[in-house]
Amino acid sequence: MSDIGFIGLGTMGKPMVRRLLAAGHRVTVWNRSRPAVDELAAEGAEPADELAQAFARPVVLSILADDAAVRERILDGGLLEDTACRVHVNLATVSAGLAAEAAERHAAHGIGYVAAPVLGRAEVAAAGRLNVLVAGAPAAVGLARPVLEPLAARIWTFGEDPSRANAVKIAVNFLLASAIETTAEAISLVESYGVEAGQFVELISNSLFPGPVYATYGGLMAGQRYEPAGFTTRLGLKDVRLAQSAAHARNLALPAASLVQDALLEAMAAGWSERDWATLAEVARRRAGAVTR
Amino acid sequence: MSDIGFIGLGTMGKPMVRRLLAAGHRVTVWNRSRPAVDELAAEGAEPADELAQAFARPVVLSILADDAAVRERILDGGLLEDTACRVHVNLATVSAGLAAEAAERHAAHGIGYVAAPVLGRAEVAAAGRLNVLVAGAPAAVGLARPVLEPLAARIWTFGEDPSRANAVKIAVNFLLASAIETTAEAISLVESYGVEAGQFVELISNSLFPGPVYATYGGLMAGQRYEPAGFTTRLGLKDVRLAQSAAHARNLALPAASLVQDALLEAMAAGWSERDWATLAEVARRRAGAVTR
Amino acid sequence: MSDIGFIGLGTMGKPMVRRLLAAGHRVTVWNRSRPAVDELAAEGAEPADELAQAFARPVVLSILADDAAVRERILDGGLLEDTACRVHVNLATVSAGLAAEAAERHAAHGIGYVAAPVLGRAEVAAAGRLNVLVAGAPAAVGLARPVLEPLAARIWTFGEDPSRANAVKIAVNFLLASAIETTAEAISLVESYGVEAGQFVELISNSLFPGPVYATYGGLMAGQRYEPAGFTTRLGLKDVRLAQSAAHARNLALPAASLVQDALLEAMAAGWSERDWATLAEVARRRAGAVTR
Amino acid sequence: MSDIGFIGLGTMGKPMVRRLLAAGHRVTVWNRSRPAVDELAAEGAEPADELAQAFARPVVLSILADDAAVRERILDGGLLEDTACRVHVNLATVSAGLAAEAAERHAAHGIGYVAAPVLGRAEVAAAGRLNVLVAGAPAAVGLARPVLEPLAARIWTFGEDPSRANAVKIAVNFLLASAIETTAEAISLVESYGVEAGQFVELISNSLFPGPVYATYGGLMAGQRYEPAGFTTRLGLKDVRLAQSAAHARNLALPAASLVQDALLEAMAAGWSERDWATLAEVARRRAGAVTR
Repeated sequence: MSDIGFIGLGTMGKPMVRRLLAAGHRVTVWNRSRPAVDELAAEGAEPADELAQAFARPVVLSILADDAAVRERILDGGLLEDTACRVHVNLATVSAGLAAEAAERHAAHGIGYVAAPVLGRAEVAAAGRLNVLVAGAPAAVGLARPVLEPLAARIWTFGEDPSRANAVKIAVNFLLASAIETTAEAISLVESYGVEAGQFVELISNSLFPGPVYATYGGLMAGQRYEPAGFTTRLGLKDVRLAQSAAHARNLALPAASLVQDALLEAMAAGWSERDWATLAEVARRRAGAVTR
Repeated sequence: MSDIGFIGLGTMGKPMVRRLLAAGHRVTVWNRSRPAVDELAAEGAEPADELAQAFARPVVLSILADDAAVRERILDGGLLEDTACRVHVNLATVSAGLAAEAAERHAAHGIGYVAAPVLGRAEVAAAGRLNVLVAGAPAAVGLARPVLEPLAARIWTFGEDPSRANAVKIAVNFLLASAIETTAEAISLVESYGVEAGQFVELISNSLFPGPVYATYGGLMAGQRYEPAGFTTRLGLKDVRLAQSAAHARNLALPAASLVQDALLEAMAAGWSERDWATLAEVARRRAGAVTR
Repeated sequence: MSDIGFIGLGTMGKPMVRRLLAAGHRVTVWNRSRPAVDELAAEGAEPADELAQAFARPVVLSILADDAAVRERILDGGLLEDTACRVHVNLATVSAGLAAEAAERHAAHGIGYVAAPVLGRAEVAAAGRLNVLVAGAPAAVGLARPVLEPLAARIWTFGEDPSRANAVKIAVNFLLASAIETTAEAISLVESYGVEAGQFVELISNSLFPGPVYATYGGLMAGQRYEPAGFTTRLGLKDVRLAQSAAHARNLALPAASLVQDALLEAMAAGWSERDWATLAEVARRRAGAVTR
Repeated sequence: MSDIGFIGLGTMGKPMVRRLLAAGHRVTVWNRSRPAVDELAAEGAEPADELAQAFARPVVLSILADDAAVRERILDGGLLEDTACRVHVNLATVSAGLAAEAAERHAAHGIGYVAAPVLGRAEVAAAGRLNVLVAGAPAAVGLARPVLEPLAARIWTFGEDPSRANAVKIAVNFLLASAIETTAEAISLVESYGVEAGQFVELISNSLFPGPVYATYGGLMAGQRYEPAGFTTRLGLKDVRLAQSAAHARNLALPAASLVQDALLEAMAAGWSERDWATLAEVARRRAGAVTR
């Protein structure tokens, strides 16, 4: 049983804390807004009034919104000095560059840093069936592993350099974005021949492309259901940009990412930033001269 | 039990004929080169010396290489006049434009034309587990259906216009080509961070992208195994061009197809035309400045 | 003074014939429709009732619409047999592939073939100020040169292989198409900051980008004047496709051509096929979420 | 005669100061490294030991390397408080976002901010023949104009919002980058047909594309002369990224910029960061399977 700090109680954070509590861990929780803290306190977590309290546990897990939040709350928040934290496990999808910088700045204070971005949505987290992508110094990963086990269907390790785990997560998201864009284009193609999109989606997800991606996004496109968004165009664009910057930092072009980015920007310009990013189908339909929704 | 003509005894045609024979049909077979005819004759098929003999059965199935072969052998071969053929079922991946033209020219001679391109490789055909995409006039489809059943896991119907079935097949191939290209780019991204490609492929095919496509092509890319080719760069380029022309005939741009086409051309220029089109990974690696194989 | 046949009396052909007549040549003219023949006959040309009459002169110039017209009227028209024609100078923008084939088929009948596509519009032709791009066997070019001189500001020679002159013409058109597309994108950028397009166009054409291209097309875009078209979207798309096929025949990708092609297709889908291809600015504006005209 | 501070004595700054001195202005100069200060002091400028001395003149001109330098030296350097500077004229190519922020922060201290990026290289600056793109509040522009006149062939004004002048400059650079990339592709096309690049460049620069851009860059490409660089691949990539971010801040996609960016990244990956960005021709040649230099 570990003594854990947990920072960031959003859609993903809350079910994760519940899994940790269920596994018998002591979890001190902090969140930007208070209600989530109280909610989990009622379920057995220790509420933290200040972020520093949660960061003072031997093992700290965090899942904040983006690079800026990690930088503001943790790296530049004075937390790394004089803390009892021994290892900080960052579950968020942040940039590969931030991971490298964070690792260095934690090390300077003798704190281990483990990158541990996850694959799976909230319901997968609730079931403890996430794929967790881990990279960091062996000692730090050794401390993190027992804490991650209640969350994971499988823990994948990618070596000592934390930015690797983030690069992998970013690459998976890039593949996802690309699958959405190409499904959108394929649908616009079959529709231009009078084929109903739903039937096409049924075909592909029952033949070459099983699994959730093509069926889910294809279904949203066929039914033109973009609200409420499972994942917004705006956030999709942020993820594609993470892929672009991870690649560009290595002088690597990702032509497909450029293409998806440009389509997402077109969706943004159309006013669709808060729609599900499956709305790429409407971009494709509009380009095809079809009436869009 | 039907009296069937079957034209084109290549990798796909042979196992199809065997399925038809096993289902008790009488099958008259023709092929451009003789050995395949003799081979199937030894297994119970009727050998045809001339294409016209095979085309003289009430139901004719054909699976020829491409538009040019269909045009030369069938449309411009004088076969449509004075034949006992009532319905011609074209199993090949031909252009949507050819399908429309073929339907019209068959109709002018009172012959039904059914487009029935298939999803699945030779071993799937041998098991009778193909997905068959069917479009054509209801009466013609009615004649074709019992003959297609021994070949199919499922028969999908897309209405009366034969070009629709071809458009769907072409769109599926476009999705496949896009998945290969984006996997290649994703691999080049993770490799630029020192991640081993094989581990990345294992991750994606065990999480968001199950099914054969990502695992198979990702595996070839990780192992840099491009020969012998399952499907060559040259044929992949042909398929992407089918998608481009089907789209362009409808004034539809397919930006992702343009991108994949340009990457395949780069592979061709590198001398990799006869390699498996998974060699797109080498194009991506070369762009990244990595040593390629 | 030469005895010349001239085939194709369109916008470009007519002023060319007038230049040849003014230079003292005897010119036998043929056109698909009769009025242009009569018009030039009234100005001193010899009218031909049949194409074969015009093709029976020692030097024949032709400027037909496209590959299909050259194939139908000349290559497959039986003209090459038993003709007095010694050299055929093809002034049209045809594919590099057609040039190669035409050269071979002319040679088989002992007729020289010179590719001589031109740069310049009708008013430039009328002034005899065209840039003429010439390639062909030296003897044939020697026969063609005195006949081309009244048409040309400058004759550029590109060696013996006729397809070279066509490749050059096609590459120039590709550069032109690209300049139009990138100007359209640049205008959408400055407009998104509230800058008036006309002022931007004045700036670029008075600084880095003098000459007709940026000023002319930028002016049309700034004023949103797309009708009547100087050159239609439909024909622009045809030219970009010539570039694509010339490149693809050499396994060469032209990524910028793919991009321009896709933008032109979007213009076609919007119903703008008969507008000037400067309408690419409206495609860019629409993508930007602006109201388009 | 004005009392001017001038900050940044690089390739462009030095000839500008000389023009101002020649016009009779008093110019206090500062530079990151001392020799340039001494050099101009010997020619009549007032040397400043500290940046603040130069920034204490009523009119200050600066031309620093990039956003980061402007931010570090001026915005975050404490210079805006308690200064005698009335108007700051920023001649550098910075981002549109920085211009907006700088204008606001100067205004908060009662200082006018004028964006005045320039078109033209060092020799054009020396001749006082720059095109100066100006935007800012009318009063500030009124103070700046007499100081800019000795530098300019023409002063172009784009209204009150400084970011507009930067957006225009960035758009011009984007057009330039695009012209380089498309010339590279066009050259790879004609070369694939055996045409010598130099002859093609001579043709285009003597017909449709006069002016310095196509002739200069085409000449470098034809001669494969990339060192020493007039403008490096690395800086070219920076400029294209300025275009991307200016566009993305308005939810605008610039597909041609994405394409050029990806080609420049490929050049970077090939190790060509310090070559002239005309080396895009080598990227195109390599894609074409040609031997590159």
